[in-house]
Amino acid sequence: MSLTLAVDIGGTHIRVAAFEADSITPAAHTRTKSLAKTPGVYDRLVKAIESVWQEGNIAAIGIASPGPLDPHRGVILDTPNIPEWKNFPVAPKLSEHFGVPVFLDNDANLAGLGEWQYGAGVGHHDLVYITISTGIGGGVISHDQLLQGFHGMGAELGHMIIDPNGPPCGCGHNGHVESFSSGPAIARYVTEQLKAGQKSSLQADPGLSAVQIASAALEGDPLAISAFERAGHYLGIGVANYLAIFDPSILIFGGGVSQVGDLLFKPFKESLRRHVFHPHYLDDLVITEAALGDNAGLLGALALARMKSKKT
Amino acid sequence: MSLTLAVDIGGTHIRVAAFEADSITPAAHTRTKSLAKTPGVYDRLVKAIESVWQEGNIAAIGIASPGPLDPHRGVILDTPNIPEWKNFPVAPKLSEHFGVPVFLDNDANLAGLGEWQYGAGVGHHDLVYITISTGIGGGVISHDQLLQGFHGMGAELGHMIIDPNGPPCGCGHNGHVESFSSGPAIARYVTEQLKAGQKSSLQADPGLSAVQIASAALEGDPLAISAFERAGHYLGIGVANYLAIFDPSILIFGGGVSQVGDLLFKPFKESLRRHVFHPHYLDDLVITEAALGDNAGLLGALALARMKSKKT
Repeated sequence: MSLTLAVDIGGTHIRVAAFEADSITPAAHTRTKSLAKTPGVYDRLVKAIESVWQEGNIAAIGIASPGPLDPHRGVILDTPNIPEWKNFPVAPKLSEHFGVPVFLDNDANLAGLGEWQYGAGVGHHDLVYITISTGIGGGVISHDQLLQGFHGMGAELGHMIIDPNGPPCGCGHNGHVESFSSGPAIARYVTEQLKAGQKSSLQADPGLSAVQIASAALEGDPLAISAFERAGHYLGIGVANYLAIFDPSILIFGGGVSQVGDLLFKPFKESLRRHVFHPHYLDDLVITEAALGDNAGLLGALALARMKSKKT
Repeated sequence: MSLTLAVDIGGTHIRVAAFEADSITPAAHTRTKSLAKTPGVYDRLVKAIESVWQEGNIAAIGIASPGPLDPHRGVILDTPNIPEWKNFPVAPKLSEHFGVPVFLDNDANLAGLGEWQYGAGVGHHDLVYITISTGIGGGVISHDQLLQGFHGMGAELGHMIIDPNGPPCGCGHNGHVESFSSGPAIARYVTEQLKAGQKSSLQADPGLSAVQIASAALEGDPLAISAFERAGHYLGIGVANYLAIFDPSILIFGGGVSQVGDLLFKPFKESLRRHVFHPHYLDDLVITEAALGDNAGLLGALALARMKSKKT
């Protein structure tokens, strides 16, 4: 039986798994370090693939990686955790080595694709997936198609300007959704307020995290609560825009920050109701958590390889 | 030979035309008033269709109308110029009457579809069409598909919030692209500046139009020039967002205000370069004017009927 192979390039490890047709449980899997003092991550990846390759006949390989990358050419332009991969044509190289088609896309797009095929979004035709962690990323399914775009850089939902005078984003621009509602944006807001003299159980600390702020908020700290209210408020503005643009039937939230629950989602939903262009967008709209957890990227890579290899 | 029939519901007239396969020149056409003191616009539409019907065997009908409307059910919810059409199922009614499939969508979506099939966007796979007149509307082709959305209300590009503290939009919300860069938004800005005492060759007048302001700008009036600079600045922010979201290969501008040329597009392009999330979005991006003029809606309705009737 023909297998599909999925690769998820994460912050510390690269996961490789082989799946039989119609299954989302790996028939074989392994992992290797993505960060390492010695170079040779590509060779380690090849060996990892070879170790599961023995299990069967592979039809195609799908790869999820942090971007920026070019999915059309299969090139990783620059990925945060693997400094030796600059403009690295990982998909063509693996395709030549293994003699099978290899497909690449960024982890947020593929988490959206994975949720649509195997997770919280099954049965929907128009889906917006939003991951909120150190950044804010998006994956969009529109009319049963993954949105990739001409340069393969579509669905960068976190980098939508919602206030030109807003705070700086990690990318260098101002007022992006990510600059208001990501984990670091929430922490920066708390730090600024502490420096301005606001009282809180929290201490100004360069390592202050959204997790610590969430704990303080759950214990009733007013500054911590207001930090999530602010993040939810701006997230509501961003999502109101996504609705006017994509008009999805389901919104799926993933990523660490999205796990704080009502702290973020209560003010988010209030803001969304207030800012949505027309209330009809909210009729029958499902708003839910991601279902695939840490497997979203891997299963998205699987979905990509299955989808694209059917077409070729 | 089988013909396709297209209907464009405009501000003053409803145009009806029949097209032979592969042609975008009407084999027969007629028009009837959309605004009239006597009711019966539906009956007049039926008669208009019957008058071109004699010309051949009609396979399908496409209709472009101002929204809001539901393209999936073929229902006009509320259209500015025809007060008697509230929740009016125009497509099912015509389909029953004439015994052919009838497809409906809003005029901005269909202008985008028309430009893609027959106009400035031929050969592109990812297209964003923006019409700037009394409102700002959008039509999006993503990966060779018209973006409609779950409720059929996708691609409302003018109603994207780009500054929550921005001016009021015609829809009642604040800080939409339309509230900065539409014709009435430009006129309102000039009026406000005149009331605040700014000197200009223009006079505060409730009927002040973007056309008058453009004339004054071309004669060197500083307030009129600054009004277009401001509109172009915010349009650049909006379009930077569209690029990060859709990553198109072509942007097409239609609508009356877009015809002012450099007055708007020079500051727009400067702002776009400054605000675009990543310069790679601009590589090989075509920015151009609409090619179909007043026929965009009619030809979009034709494209819709041809496209959808192939699928059914």
